[in-house]
Amino acid sequence: MTVHQASAPSVADIEKAADRLAGLAVRTPLIESPALNDRFNARILFKPEVLQRTGSFKFRGAYNRISQLSPDERGRGVVAFSSGNHAQGVAAAAGMFDVDAVIAMPSDTPQVKVANVEAMGASVIRFDRFADDRMAVVKPYMDAGRILVPPFDDPAIIAGQGTLGLEILADMERLGAALDIVVAPCGGGGLIAGLSLAVKARLTETAVWAVEPEGFDDTRRSLAADRRVANEPGHTSICDAILTPSPGEITFEINRRHLAGAIAVSDAATAQAMRDAALHLKLVVEPGGAVGLAALSSGEIDIEGKCVVVVLSGGNVDPVAYARLIAA
Amino acid sequence: MTVHQASAPSVADIEKAADRLAGLAVRTPLIESPALNDRFNARILFKPEVLQRTGSFKFRGAYNRISQLSPDERGRGVVAFSSGNHAQGVAAAAGMFDVDAVIAMPSDTPQVKVANVEAMGASVIRFDRFADDRMAVVKPYMDAGRILVPPFDDPAIIAGQGTLGLEILADMERLGAALDIVVAPCGGGGLIAGLSLAVKARLTETAVWAVEPEGFDDTRRSLAADRRVANEPGHTSICDAILTPSPGEITFEINRRHLAGAIAVSDAATAQAMRDAALHLKLVVEPGGAVGLAALSSGEIDIEGKCVVVVLSGGNVDPVAYARLIAA
Repeated sequence: MTVHQASAPSVADIEKAADRLAGLAVRTPLIESPALNDRFNARILFKPEVLQRTGSFKFRGAYNRISQLSPDERGRGVVAFSSGNHAQGVAAAAGMFDVDAVIAMPSDTPQVKVANVEAMGASVIRFDRFADDRMAVVKPYMDAGRILVPPFDDPAIIAGQGTLGLEILADMERLGAALDIVVAPCGGGGLIAGLSLAVKARLTETAVWAVEPEGFDDTRRSLAADRRVANEPGHTSICDAILTPSPGEITFEINRRHLAGAIAVSDAATAQAMRDAALHLKLVVEPGGAVGLAALSSGEIDIEGKCVVVVLSGGNVDPVAYARLIAA
Repeated sequence: MTVHQASAPSVADIEKAADRLAGLAVRTPLIESPALNDRFNARILFKPEVLQRTGSFKFRGAYNRISQLSPDERGRGVVAFSSGNHAQGVAAAAGMFDVDAVIAMPSDTPQVKVANVEAMGASVIRFDRFADDRMAVVKPYMDAGRILVPPFDDPAIIAGQGTLGLEILADMERLGAALDIVVAPCGGGGLIAGLSLAVKARLTETAVWAVEPEGFDDTRRSLAADRRVANEPGHTSICDAILTPSPGEITFEINRRHLAGAIAVSDAATAQAMRDAALHLKLVVEPGGAVGLAALSSGEIDIEGKCVVVVLSGGNVDPVAYARLIAA
């Protein structure tokens, strides 16, 4: 029986997660574009998690969590709530262990994400992102015995996402390049928490920045207040993947210690980053996956002459919506 | 002084090219999509040369050729004709050796390719793909002393493209997977010649297939006739990168010995492959780069239950044209 501990994972937990994921997660490379290097007068290396199994980094954490379920827990099945990428990670990992999965997804989730989840054999229920309490939506399933696989506020999930940080460290060493800055998208903060844990344990001087959409900058404002602050209602954003109500308890406790700061970017800057990724990197990046690249143009991070790794965290976007955004 | 020899490169030449390119060319990974594996009932591994420096495999051959110029030849500069991807490869490689480059590009070349070439410091002259003789366009520059860097019919170019085959072999060994089939786009045949040389030297049973656009299936018809046959005039295609008039002398001599065959695909099948690459692989692939994936649906290759590597050879497409094709 796995006991849920509301505490940060260790680097050893991240290393164990990497062992579990070896050969199953895609070992994504670092890629760069001379044109973008010239534009920013810096060396920008991109970690394209759009190439990850299920099209986002979320498979890492979901697999790490589900692989540690006991046989009894596997028999009871899992339940998760997710804007779509965690849903696909959970559906894929559950399928690999023959575990039944129920996923609650917001009603504005891109159809490509719902279709992918159903194609992997999970059942989808819908909820209203702005009106419904996510925990209330999944509670009946938990009461019926299913194990909750949380999207971010869980040590095994955070450790799984952190494996991406170990890969960045290994690749930077191979390149013989100094890692000055890491920039990554931030919703509930699971990715940036795992990433910053892995990176800061080895490289204490590296600055790790979180990036959020304007109006959903709960981590930015929480860092400023030094306590967890929720987003105000009434905002919208194209970045469906990272519109969480507030930072997680565990993730914020990690992030307040490790982050250099957080930056909020506009939808227009995000759409421009999607175009830049298509043109210069040949990668299809979804809005929530592109905010790290968008942040480079904000002027809020001093990147000149530095070596910067930018995580492109996901690429699950409906083709028609994508075409509209990059042609604009 | 490099002497041009109209003969096939050896595997040793390809290995030397790989040494020259190490750390300069992107070591592109093999990636796969469970959804596409399911659709084709096969294991499909994609070699995404869209992630290569300059957005296509062409940098490999151009760099390998230009790096072998003598100091005298470097001082005289280079000239090349190219539908756009070879142009970018030549411009990038020439820039790395401070060699002046003049590139002749067809008037229907996507603007993104022209802009990239000029941004890398090369001079562009235009010609009519269907009316002008390419050699006549570049001859005045050769008469003035410039060295021609041919797009495909050159041992050093073929050896450079072949490095992609060595990477596929190494990755397949690491995966412990048998390589049953390799499928790659074919214009003048330089990529498939280098690739088949590298692969068949090690794995004599692996079937290597070339894919061309309908109406530009000169290699397919040349293989059938067992002699070089040119394309008939009057055809058009969205696959600007691979619309060459006829197979090269050296490339055809290699390809007639090594290829399992060649397949012609329609523009509609190519556009569908571009959509599949965006949706399932998160890769921006240009029309000419996507024909290998298109060929899997043709039914002409028996891929069921097999392990297939498909080369996605380039991703240089204007964003607006790209958006129109994938939204259709």
